Amino acid sequence: MTGEYDRPRAARGGVRLHLNENTAGCSPAVLRALRSVTERDAAFYPDYDEAYAAVARAFDVPEDQVVLTNGLDEGILTATAAAFRDRGDGVPEGLGVFPAFDMYEVCTEALGGRMVMRPLGPDYSYPWDALGSAVNERTRIVYVTNPHNPTGHALALDDIVALSRAIAPVMLFVDEAYADFTGETLLARETFAELPNIVVGRTFAKAHGLAGVRVGALFGHPDTLAPIRRIVLPYTLNIFATVALPVALADREYRDWYAAQVIESKRMLREACARLGFGVSRSAANFVLVNVGDHARWLVEALAARQVFVRDRSSDPGCAGCIRMTTGLVSDTERLVAAMEEAWCGAPR
Amino acid sequence: MTGEYDRPRAARGGVRLHLNENTAGCSPAVLRALRSVTERDAAFYPDYDEAYAAVARAFDVPEDQVVLTNGLDEGILTATAAAFRDRGDGVPEGLGVFPAFDMYEVCTEALGGRMVMRPLGPDYSYPWDALGSAVNERTRIVYVTNPHNPTGHALALDDIVALSRAIAPVMLFVDEAYADFTGETLLARETFAELPNIVVGRTFAKAHGLAGVRVGALFGHPDTLAPIRRIVLPYTLNIFATVALPVALADREYRDWYAAQVIESKRMLREACARLGFGVSRSAANFVLVNVGDHARWLVEALAARQVFVRDRSSDPGCAGCIRMTTGLVSDTERLVAAMEEAWCGAPR
Repeated sequence: MTGEYDRPRAARGGVRLHLNENTAGCSPAVLRALRSVTERDAAFYPDYDEAYAAVARAFDVPEDQVVLTNGLDEGILTATAAAFRDRGDGVPEGLGVFPAFDMYEVCTEALGGRMVMRPLGPDYSYPWDALGSAVNERTRIVYVTNPHNPTGHALALDDIVALSRAIAPVMLFVDEAYADFTGETLLARETFAELPNIVVGRTFAKAHGLAGVRVGALFGHPDTLAPIRRIVLPYTLNIFATVALPVALADREYRDWYAAQVIESKRMLREACARLGFGVSRSAANFVLVNVGDHARWLVEALAARQVFVRDRSSDPGCAGCIRMTTGLVSDTERLVAAMEEAWCGAPR
Repeated sequence: MTGEYDRPRAARGGVRLHLNENTAGCSPAVLRALRSVTERDAAFYPDYDEAYAAVARAFDVPEDQVVLTNGLDEGILTATAAAFRDRGDGVPEGLGVFPAFDMYEVCTEALGGRMVMRPLGPDYSYPWDALGSAVNERTRIVYVTNPHNPTGHALALDDIVALSRAIAPVMLFVDEAYADFTGETLLARETFAELPNIVVGRTFAKAHGLAGVRVGALFGHPDTLAPIRRIVLPYTLNIFATVALPVALADREYRDWYAAQVIESKRMLREACARLGFGVSRSAANFVLVNVGDHARWLVEALAARQVFVRDRSSDPGCAGCIRMTTGLVSDTERLVAAMEEAWCGAPR
């Protein structure tokens, strides 16, 4: 894909399983916090002290290792802009794998860089050696996603650390958007502080259900974050993000409940796919990549006709036949499975 | 100033006259819209169709001449990033005047550029000739604010158009953050579409009272906006901005009432300053620059001790003795005037 990110559409009122959202919504406690915002709160530039303190506490890091962002997308954009800042001569390069989250390429190209990509290996295995050897003197940032999107595969933290050492001082951007569903994070490693070329990105859009509120965070060594902090806008977070975030982080019970829904949904979807003869990725995230073989596009449309929206990835390089499906609320997954089974009976053969 | 933007602080519960906010808050209709957001709305990536349609309608321009941004700050950042994108050799330059809004310099430097500035002339007159002749082959973007900040002076649209013609194809960024208080805008000019190097920035933070919600807009020729649109994040606006904006734009009655409050507040503040012997800028915006001579810093602190927060600009180049004061709700201005008169009696002589 080149150029702008293409926002996928879904009709209102359907089952949204196309954007890896929290399909249950934010927690009731968060909604109460959102509704406590007054006319004047809405009209005043927000204060970020409590939001920063809450994130530092939740991740057990000092506040100077945190930058809050307008969703993790802004984290990707500003880390890329910082990496490209003193670009020297020639076109700066971003490096990543394909298939992957579109925004790495979108941000690299929007900022005047060139995106270099290496394919995932057999069974979507991560091409660590190919990535390492693709780094050259124009490479400014390498993007890794853990768990990976769209496969959901969990990467070994040791492999990430090894790559960071191999490519230093080139920035390694580790997108942990879905790490809440695994519990595994580089942030918990003692060596994290010793790896100043790593920036870890997190979002509160997924497990915490704040995609519409827009809030993410970057973590890294204070010196590494400094040029990023200069680019992140001083009032980038809206007032609703600042009041929602501390409440969402504190509401562990809701997150645990939702994580259990995701696990059960993945089990149900795997079983259904086995019945239908579809391949399913071993996902550690809140979605799976389903390989339906031929007719992927047809099935996406047949599901949409039944008001169930999933993400066609079949035209992505290396993803022939693949559809990405969010596994959230069990009741939504029941609708997905029923719609898939019904639709597939009528598939063209 | 160099480096990060420094968010000015104010204690809660005081009278906030330091950030040119709408001190009355957003309108009651907007608050109702904000509170209609549900758990699921908060958890889903927003849809922007209605917000774009509302802005295009309100400003009477086609939608492809609009880019909505996470506050106008993001508009400044992304326009600068687009202008710097194909930078060629050497350090790209931004050009503007001083004193001015900090974000032009912050964004230029954060993105690796160099900020070149020319001083305002006598009586804060705009240095049109000096700006025009400062453009060189490294200049990528020129920033103009109308009405100007921190003086509040209205610029002649003809002068802006003349500068845009003189510097083309260099981008002229016209920040109309405070244009709602004058009604004068480049967007109403028929020649606007013929000036493809102009990007006009607007915010809904000021007259519309949405500073905490974060929403702004850029206007320009579709070809000029295209590289900016690629940098603006696909989900940059939060769900609250999308529901508030159409309602705020439709609520003309509230805006007219607030604009009348601003006019009356400016009259009151001018009278008080005349009594106290302070100079006052001829402001067309929702603030004035007050020259108190010596003891500006002292007065800012004396007002803060009385829970009235204003912005010390006395250490800005060309602003010796100056304090910027928001003129919003008449009741807030009454408190400001009373606190100033009381404090000034005790000023060191």
